[in-house]
Amino acid sequence: MYKSKISISVRKNILDPQGKAVEHSLKSMGFEKILDTRIGKYIELVIDAGSEREALELSEDACQKLLANPVMEDYSIVVQKEGEDD
Amino acid sequence: MYKSKISISVRKNILDPQGKAVEHSLKSMGFEKILDTRIGKYIELVIDAGSEREALELSEDACQKLLANPVMEDYSIVVQKEGEDD
Repeated sequence: MYKSKISISVRKNILDPQGKAVEHSLKSMGFEKILDTRIGKYIELVIDAGSEREALELSEDACQKLLANPVMEDYSIVVQKEGEDD
Repeated sequence: MYKSKISISVRKNILDPQGKAVEHSLKSMGFEKILDTRIGKYIELVIDAGSEREALELSEDACQKLLANPVMEDYSIVVQKEGEDD
C-alpha cells in the first residue's frame, strides 16, 4: 500500500488571485517578510499498487486525466510506503 | 531567501466530501487501485528570512494565525533555500 502526496499549483506566469489576497492579509497582520504567496491544491491518494513505480505511474495518470489542469497548473508527486512518514 | 511549502489537509477523522467526490470520479474512470483520496490546500510562501529556522517559525506562525484551521486541519511545512529544488 502506498501513499501518494500531490502538490498542484498554478504556473508561475499565471495570476493567482487567491494567493494575492492571502498575501495582503499576511502583510496587514505584520508578516512583512513573506514576499510572495501562491495557493494550490494538495491531494493525498492511498494506492493499492505492487510497487512504488506503479503507484507513481497511477498518480501521474490521475493528475493528467483528472486532478490537475496540465495547461495552467504544475504538479509534483511524492510516493511513499503507507505508514512511513516524512 | 527561503521557500516554504505548506500542505494542509483535513484531519483523518473529519469527513472530506471533496475528496470522496474525486475518489468516485477516479473509480468510474477505471482507477480501482486508488482506495482513498483526500483533498486539501497547498501553499507556497517566499520568505525573506535570515535563516531556515526563522523561515520555519514564520510559516508556523502564519499557519496558526491565518492559513490553517488548527481545529479541523493538519499541516506540514517544508522549508528550503529559494532556488534549490526537490
